[in-house]
Amino acid sequence: MIAIGIAGYGYWGPNLARAVAASGCAKVEMIADRMEPARARAALHHPAARLTADIYDMINDPKVDAVMIATPVNTHFDMAMAALKAGKHVLVEKPMADTPARAAQLVDEAARRNLILMVDHTFVYTGAVQKIASLIDSGELGDLYYYDSTRVNLGIFQRDVDVIWDLAVHDFAILDRLMPSQPVAVSASAASCIAGSPANMAHLSVYYDDGAMAYLNVNWLAPVKIRQTVIGGSKKMVIYDDMQTSEKVKVYDSGASAGTEGYESLVSYRTGDMYSPALSSKEALLSEVQEFASCIQTNAIPLTDGVSGLRVVDILAAATLSTKRRGFPVDLVQKKVAS
Amino acid sequence: MIAIGIAGYGYWGPNLARAVAASGCAKVEMIADRMEPARARAALHHPAARLTADIYDMINDPKVDAVMIATPVNTHFDMAMAALKAGKHVLVEKPMADTPARAAQLVDEAARRNLILMVDHTFVYTGAVQKIASLIDSGELGDLYYYDSTRVNLGIFQRDVDVIWDLAVHDFAILDRLMPSQPVAVSASAASCIAGSPANMAHLSVYYDDGAMAYLNVNWLAPVKIRQTVIGGSKKMVIYDDMQTSEKVKVYDSGASAGTEGYESLVSYRTGDMYSPALSSKEALLSEVQEFASCIQTNAIPLTDGVSGLRVVDILAAATLSTKRRGFPVDLVQKKVAS
Amino acid sequence: MIAIGIAGYGYWGPNLARAVAASGCAKVEMIADRMEPARARAALHHPAARLTADIYDMINDPKVDAVMIATPVNTHFDMAMAALKAGKHVLVEKPMADTPARAAQLVDEAARRNLILMVDHTFVYTGAVQKIASLIDSGELGDLYYYDSTRVNLGIFQRDVDVIWDLAVHDFAILDRLMPSQPVAVSASAASCIAGSPANMAHLSVYYDDGAMAYLNVNWLAPVKIRQTVIGGSKKMVIYDDMQTSEKVKVYDSGASAGTEGYESLVSYRTGDMYSPALSSKEALLSEVQEFASCIQTNAIPLTDGVSGLRVVDILAAATLSTKRRGFPVDLVQKKVAS
Amino acid sequence: MIAIGIAGYGYWGPNLARAVAASGCAKVEMIADRMEPARARAALHHPAARLTADIYDMINDPKVDAVMIATPVNTHFDMAMAALKAGKHVLVEKPMADTPARAAQLVDEAARRNLILMVDHTFVYTGAVQKIASLIDSGELGDLYYYDSTRVNLGIFQRDVDVIWDLAVHDFAILDRLMPSQPVAVSASAASCIAGSPANMAHLSVYYDDGAMAYLNVNWLAPVKIRQTVIGGSKKMVIYDDMQTSEKVKVYDSGASAGTEGYESLVSYRTGDMYSPALSSKEALLSEVQEFASCIQTNAIPLTDGVSGLRVVDILAAATLSTKRRGFPVDLVQKKVAS
Repeated sequence: MIAIGIAGYGYWGPNLARAVAASGCAKVEMIADRMEPARARAALHHPAARLTADIYDMINDPKVDAVMIATPVNTHFDMAMAALKAGKHVLVEKPMADTPARAAQLVDEAARRNLILMVDHTFVYTGAVQKIASLIDSGELGDLYYYDSTRVNLGIFQRDVDVIWDLAVHDFAILDRLMPSQPVAVSASAASCIAGSPANMAHLSVYYDDGAMAYLNVNWLAPVKIRQTVIGGSKKMVIYDDMQTSEKVKVYDSGASAGTEGYESLVSYRTGDMYSPALSSKEALLSEVQEFASCIQTNAIPLTDGVSGLRVVDILAAATLSTKRRGFPVDLVQKKVAS
Repeated sequence: MIAIGIAGYGYWGPNLARAVAASGCAKVEMIADRMEPARARAALHHPAARLTADIYDMINDPKVDAVMIATPVNTHFDMAMAALKAGKHVLVEKPMADTPARAAQLVDEAARRNLILMVDHTFVYTGAVQKIASLIDSGELGDLYYYDSTRVNLGIFQRDVDVIWDLAVHDFAILDRLMPSQPVAVSASAASCIAGSPANMAHLSVYYDDGAMAYLNVNWLAPVKIRQTVIGGSKKMVIYDDMQTSEKVKVYDSGASAGTEGYESLVSYRTGDMYSPALSSKEALLSEVQEFASCIQTNAIPLTDGVSGLRVVDILAAATLSTKRRGFPVDLVQKKVAS
Repeated sequence: MIAIGIAGYGYWGPNLARAVAASGCAKVEMIADRMEPARARAALHHPAARLTADIYDMINDPKVDAVMIATPVNTHFDMAMAALKAGKHVLVEKPMADTPARAAQLVDEAARRNLILMVDHTFVYTGAVQKIASLIDSGELGDLYYYDSTRVNLGIFQRDVDVIWDLAVHDFAILDRLMPSQPVAVSASAASCIAGSPANMAHLSVYYDDGAMAYLNVNWLAPVKIRQTVIGGSKKMVIYDDMQTSEKVKVYDSGASAGTEGYESLVSYRTGDMYSPALSSKEALLSEVQEFASCIQTNAIPLTDGVSGLRVVDILAAATLSTKRRGFPVDLVQKKVAS
Repeated sequence: MIAIGIAGYGYWGPNLARAVAASGCAKVEMIADRMEPARARAALHHPAARLTADIYDMINDPKVDAVMIATPVNTHFDMAMAALKAGKHVLVEKPMADTPARAAQLVDEAARRNLILMVDHTFVYTGAVQKIASLIDSGELGDLYYYDSTRVNLGIFQRDVDVIWDLAVHDFAILDRLMPSQPVAVSASAASCIAGSPANMAHLSVYYDDGAMAYLNVNWLAPVKIRQTVIGGSKKMVIYDDMQTSEKVKVYDSGASAGTEGYESLVSYRTGDMYSPALSSKEALLSEVQEFASCIQTNAIPLTDGVSGLRVVDILAAATLSTKRRGFPVDLVQKKVAS
């Protein structure tokens, strides 16, 4: 059993701790939170775990094998770095860090010490995204043309991050898993409806090196909750609607191919069946924790490793820069290495 | 009865002719189309109308008071200009012309000759858009924050125009009616999935001088047809779903206002009723033809006059320019004059 | 070309005439309607057809090969009988007659004269019902457990028929095509919300000899239009939603099978894929007219022949009887002969 | 604080215990369950509660003021009767008992001892049903014409109760709250798709003394989960869709009124706005527990008292009887006394 320390027991920490307790391969060794009510809740839920108000105490505890960090974004770097330096494996909440430079330092430190560094890109472990990934990897969709996502709701206006770092980060993590090609540039617009608040709505276009495009529409100020992604391929198209309780993923045979001759050289229609595949109902967070434990034990590279976390932070930073200049395109630096 | 000449009896011309015949204030005097089968259909539907293969014959016919132009975009300018020079009032299909300069020449010519120049922005005359306009004009929505539209389907790949000029033009026409402020810049990305075809998908961000934003998502290559617009205001929000057979427009009381104090200065939620107003079921095209006839008779300015057509062409051209440079923002020239 | 006479040019007659004109194998020879405005419309739409105010003139016209009857239900018997006695083939609007006895007389007369007698059960010819029929006939659904249909809307309160004869007739026609077993009894409740009007809402349960059930919910006084049918089989289940513009038919793999052992002998779940088959988009009425013409030419038995029309009238009459006695079950007489 | 004993800690008992703990006016004094794992869970969730394997120990415990019974239906009567005889107030799971006679005995016993007897008809306490009740009580819907409910899903095949006692019971409880008139008869059909199992699908028609109708469609073997109720009134109509995450209740202005004159005496259409009222988001079970505690303290009659539970059992038994005879109508005995 891998002994886990949970840093932060506010909104997300309890979910991590619950998944660890249910994993069968890891246990909650310690929980750290500077707020007393959070520790009281932790004591109730995990009576066998030791508690501390000082996260660094936990990071340096010899019985802790690995640390999961669920604290505010601007503390991720310091805590993760301290944990790595203390020889602990690290799973860090998304986004991995607040700048690409800091994310890169974490990657380097983990590599130098041969420790597992993993980012909590939970959506990548859902049955829906796993199914879509398999549809793409198997070639069933054909060449990928676009990924077009709407992720809006009447949400909490965060104080420390804007809507891009809060919501678009999910799509960037999913894209990092799904897209076979390299993102090369991003153009983004954003606006804040409430004076003095971080941007609460944004639209982003990501350019890929093979001509594919990704579009993201994120908004904290929408009348209804929408979680809908359309993925267009040369052979098939997918609609992924995360608000559906069933039939979250639909695969469409219908498509278009270029006509070739004559005055009315329109694109011909092909319309066929649609199907909605059964999805794994295993909880994403549980799969993720088991992946973390397994990689620690076998020294394998996690699906959502530090390098993927770095790529996501890089594109978040580039998008933010583009929003300052009304969609001026910003080139991306971090490349995905062919696996 | 105003005597109308219909130029072009292909896809849209028959609809214009039918609306004229039903209007009660105008009649179909002539129909011109160079294709024989089109004229045969015209003869069947409008046995009292005179037919010709030469549109310029019709334009110069002394019994024709006004001309409606439903021919390909790149012919709009020549035909509309000829009609104006022949002293005819003109209703021209959208987009009004293929360049802002040409659109401006038409506006000037009509003004000089004191003729009515109107653009067929049909959506502006629908019960749904009229209702939304009244909600905005009456202040019920409060300050407008954003207009966010998805207009996608598995559509015909046009040969002569791209998806921006084919689909986004509808949103620009609606925006010209709805938005109380001035658009100042546009950033757009576009891509073509079929090599050698015009762009079939595009995302556009329009910046307004009061901080409002408009976002458009248009695509000819989507698995399902979506026609959904979300409009966010400081008091209320609207969802306009044109694919619904009933309840096309929904008005949401729910919203957000900035909290002011303390550690968790989140935005507070207000959640109230939703309602879906009854909409006029009068056919949009019929309202539009009656507006045209009425303006001819009273020398009033049409709701969708040549100047509005010019503003729409200006923003279409700016968006196209932006797509060539990966979303580089392009400033807009044509201003809407306070009415 | 088979020469068709259309009896009645009110609501449905024009559709029949249009389908005949488009069929390629029949032509509109005459149109009869006692109302002058109806004949004027007929002249406009079918200038080559001869017109008459007297339907019996048309029935006895030597150039007419077959008659299509689209007049009020209580006239079906007299007109169809006259046409058969004049040696004409007959297609009669649904329901075929107002009593089972009269429907049976028509069947006998047609058989004696070796004429085609067909009933206009249009839904049977839709792509959706044809697809469902093939799913059942091929055994893909397994044993049929139930057919459960909701057919409600804010509709016209008919004066001469109630909601069972107006709406449930569609389901009975579909059931006659789909169900492999014999209906043996019907229990129905009905009510009229408007005093003095025919019943505007009804619920019907039909018992089949193999234990299958059909349930129908019909209502003229519902706030929204619903056309949804669920069909449960031992292997697969179908949802047929006629209000959808795409994906009208969905086939579900999921099901249940009886568990066998122990304290918690629950039914086990099987959950698999769902798929939505592509449907023929050919107009149902066109297929029906071609079936009529083909049967006349080859002396074949139509899919919706007079005998099926009789079975439908029999069950309509039995349902009406049951409604008078608060759902008292009424046995059915007419049997479907194994084909 | 009222001291509550929870009888049965299987599926529903934990929800009752949690609601008691959250109520602020009652506490979980004891929990009884004969299964050891259930008691272990109870110990974890409610460390301050005393545990016992013998429910009668708890019923007779002097520190227990009131008992909540969440055991199988066929044990309700014995336990509730024992609790009443021990002088305890009782909240019993629905259905209140397995026969009307036993339900009536419980009502009598509680009345004789002046104890509160309440039935856990949870739906009555939801924000949606409360809102609909207020729409009816205020006269906004006008005269009630019908209640038409579909409550189907791919569900567990219960061993000890059929689908009527498992699912239709919810509608009967809601109807008991909503309908202003008396049910006088019920006609029901039911069938079992799995040989030897209790009926898994049923359709029920309930006749009211003012001509109103209620229709229920319940099914454990449906491909998708549907929870939709349409309520028709002379002024307005309601759609209540419990599967929606928002806009569960919609109120439609549209309706019909009888036309009076002439050949085409159709019903005229009135179409107006639709609105969706905001609903209380307070948990139904919490409201119910507070109602129970409040009635104990003030000796008031609960909204879902034993008499309402008896009426529901009476109609369940009548419906079951009707299903044995193919919808033969069965008269109802228990009357609702005007309050």
